[in-house]
Amino acid sequence: MNEMSAKPAGAPLERRIVRVDLADRSYNILIHQGLIDEAGAEIAARMPGVRLAVVSDETVAGLHLERLSLSLKAAGIEHVPVIVPAGEGTKSYDGLIRVVEAVIEARLERGDAVLALGGGVVGDLAGFAAAVTRRGMGFIQMPTSLLAQVDSSVGGKTGINSPQGKNLVGAFHQPALVLADTALLDTLSPREFAAGYAEVVKYGLIDRPDFFEWLDANRQSVFAGGTARTEAIALSCEAKAAVVAADEHEGGVRALLNLGHTFGHALEKFAAYDTARLVHGEGVAIGMALAHRYSATEGLCPEGDVARVEAHLKACGLPTRIQDIPGNAPSVEALMQAISQDKKVARGKLTFILTRGIGRAFIARDVDAGHIANFLSTELAA
Amino acid sequence: MNEMSAKPAGAPLERRIVRVDLADRSYNILIHQGLIDEAGAEIAARMPGVRLAVVSDETVAGLHLERLSLSLKAAGIEHVPVIVPAGEGTKSYDGLIRVVEAVIEARLERGDAVLALGGGVVGDLAGFAAAVTRRGMGFIQMPTSLLAQVDSSVGGKTGINSPQGKNLVGAFHQPALVLADTALLDTLSPREFAAGYAEVVKYGLIDRPDFFEWLDANRQSVFAGGTARTEAIALSCEAKAAVVAADEHEGGVRALLNLGHTFGHALEKFAAYDTARLVHGEGVAIGMALAHRYSATEGLCPEGDVARVEAHLKACGLPTRIQDIPGNAPSVEALMQAISQDKKVARGKLTFILTRGIGRAFIARDVDAGHIANFLSTELAA
Repeated sequence: MNEMSAKPAGAPLERRIVRVDLADRSYNILIHQGLIDEAGAEIAARMPGVRLAVVSDETVAGLHLERLSLSLKAAGIEHVPVIVPAGEGTKSYDGLIRVVEAVIEARLERGDAVLALGGGVVGDLAGFAAAVTRRGMGFIQMPTSLLAQVDSSVGGKTGINSPQGKNLVGAFHQPALVLADTALLDTLSPREFAAGYAEVVKYGLIDRPDFFEWLDANRQSVFAGGTARTEAIALSCEAKAAVVAADEHEGGVRALLNLGHTFGHALEKFAAYDTARLVHGEGVAIGMALAHRYSATEGLCPEGDVARVEAHLKACGLPTRIQDIPGNAPSVEALMQAISQDKKVARGKLTFILTRGIGRAFIARDVDAGHIANFLSTELAA
Repeated sequence: MNEMSAKPAGAPLERRIVRVDLADRSYNILIHQGLIDEAGAEIAARMPGVRLAVVSDETVAGLHLERLSLSLKAAGIEHVPVIVPAGEGTKSYDGLIRVVEAVIEARLERGDAVLALGGGVVGDLAGFAAAVTRRGMGFIQMPTSLLAQVDSSVGGKTGINSPQGKNLVGAFHQPALVLADTALLDTLSPREFAAGYAEVVKYGLIDRPDFFEWLDANRQSVFAGGTARTEAIALSCEAKAAVVAADEHEGGVRALLNLGHTFGHALEKFAAYDTARLVHGEGVAIGMALAHRYSATEGLCPEGDVARVEAHLKACGLPTRIQDIPGNAPSVEALMQAISQDKKVARGKLTFILTRGIGRAFIARDVDAGHIANFLSTELAA
C-alpha cells in the first residue's frame, strides 16, 4: 500500500485518476464529486467527434439523465437515450437485443460509443451490447452505484444471464473511460451503499491490510461522503486494477477477487435472487465472514482477525451469518449443491479463496468438499 | 508470390498448412483431401481433453456429420451435435440463442470448444456463439464450402444479421484450428463451387498477379479437384492471412479484401438476397468486373486487363454484368442508395477498391459518387 502511506490522512486528494494498465486497451477511471457535470468535456477531450447511445434504466434515468444530457450537449456531443427497465431481468437476451437494435437504429458507427449510466446491471448489459454491435464499438462507464464504481466498472467483464445461470453469456470488453461521480451515491439507500461497501472492504481483506486499517478508522467518513469516500473508491479501483492488469482473462490471480463469492453465490441462489432477502454485496459479506471462519477452523487464520472482520462488517450494517438472511434457513445439502454448480468439482476437491489473516488471502485449489459441508453444518446449528 | 515460384507446377504438395500469424491468437489452417477422417487425431493432439459442441446445419450434417463423429470418437473426444436449419435465416438472434443454450446445456467449460461443420452461415454463427458463451470458449472451423475455406474461415469475423442489416452483430474471435478438407467440396453444386471461386480469383486480382496467371492456366484442374484445388485453397488462405495479420481489426489494408464487394453487396440487396437470382460470390464476380471496368473508364486500368478478368470469370461460369442477374434490372438510384448505405458517405465521396491492373488493387477514399452513378447508368444501358 505505497499509495496509502504516501497520503497523510489529513490531506486526501479530491480528484483521483486510476489508470487500468492493459496495453492497447488501457484506460482511466476519473473519480470525484460532481463529475457528471464535466462528463461532456472529459469525453469530448478524449474522443473528439464521438456520438453516444446513453443506456440507463428507468430509475437512474429519472435521477441523473437530464444532468448528464446537459453536460453532453454543452460539449457538443450528439447522443440518444436508450432506457431499459430497472432490475436484473433486463440482463437477458431480450434486453440485449433491445439495446443493440437501438444502437444500430441510431446509426452509430464503430468509432462511436455506448455509455452506461447506471449500476452493475446496466453496465454489464450496455458493455456487452457495445462489444457485439458492429463487432465492437467504444464503451464508456458512468457507474451510479458503489458496487459498480468499485467492482464492475473495472475489469471489462460484460454480459447477460442465461435461463440456465447468471453471467453465462458475455464478453471481455474494456471501456475507453470510466467516470465515477462519488456524489451520485448520495441517492443510494443505506442498504445499497453498505452492500457495495462489502466489495470495498474485500480489497483490504485480500492483500491490503493497511487499507483495511484505514477503513476501520475512517468507515463513518466513507459512508458520510466527501473526500474519504472518494479516497476509498480510488483505492478500491487501484486494487482491482492491479489484479486485472496481472490477469485480464481470469486464468490465475484474478480468482482472488472471488473472496467471499463462492459462499455468497450459493446464498444468493438459495434466496432465489430475491433482493428483499439478500443482495449481492450482502451475500459477499456473509461469504467473507464464512471464508475467515472456515480458515480459522482449518488453523489457517488467527481468531482475532476473524473477530475484527466480523465486527467491521456488523458496524457497517452488513450481515455476517447465514441466519442473518430473513426467512427459512437453507439445508447443508442445498448449499453444497449450489457450491458444486458454481465451481468445477474435481474428485471431491473445490477451489476456494481462503486466508491466513487480514490481507493474506490465497487461492486454495484442493479444499475438501466434506470439510466444507461439516463447517456449514456447524454454522447452521450455531 | 515467392510461394508460387518456389513450387514448380508439376510437384504441388498434397498436404498444406497455412499459419495465420496473430501473436497469442495465431493458428494453423490444415488443408488436404480426406482430412475429415483425421479431424479427431488433429484436435486431440492440439487440445488434449477438449470436449466439443459440433454445430452444423441439416444439409451438411446429413452429408458429413457421421464421418466426423466417427473420427472424433476414435480419438476419444466427447462431443454433442447442435443442428440448426440450413440457410441465412439461421444467422439470427434466435439461431444464436439456440446454439449458446445448447452449449451451456452440454456443460461445456471455457476450455472446451465449439466446432463449426458447415459453410459461412454455420461458421459465423458458431464462432459468435463460441465468442460469447462463458465470455469466450475455444473455436474450431471445419469449413465445407469453397467460400468458407478461402474466406470466412480466415480472419476471425463472426456474427449474425440484425433485422436492420447483415452482419451488424458479432465479434472478432479467432479459431484455434481450421481443418479444410478439400474433398468435401465434391458435394457442392457447380454453381456453389464457382461462387466460392470468385473469392479465390479475388486474391490474385488484389496483389498477386502470379497467382492469377497460375489460376488462368490451371482453372480446370482447380474445378476438377485434387492437388491443384488444394494448392489454390492454400494460396488463397495465405493471401488472406497475410492481410489479416497486418490489420486484424479492419483499420487499414484489410479493406482491400472488399474488392468487388461494395458493388456486390448493392446487387445482393437489389436481388433481395434471393439466392435463386444471385449468391454472394456471383455478386462479388460482377462487382470485381465492375471495379475493373470503372477503373478503366477513369484511366487507371489497362483495357487488356479488364478483358482478361472478364474472360476468366466467364470461363468459370460466373456472371460479369448486372444484366446477367435474372429478373428485372435495378435502377441507378436503387444501386446508389444501397452503395451509400453500405459505406459512410463523406461529402459525396465514397471509398471503393479500385485497380491499376491485375494484382494492383488499391483503396480509393475519394471516389466521386456522381462518377459512379454515371458509370452505372452506362453499364445498365449497354
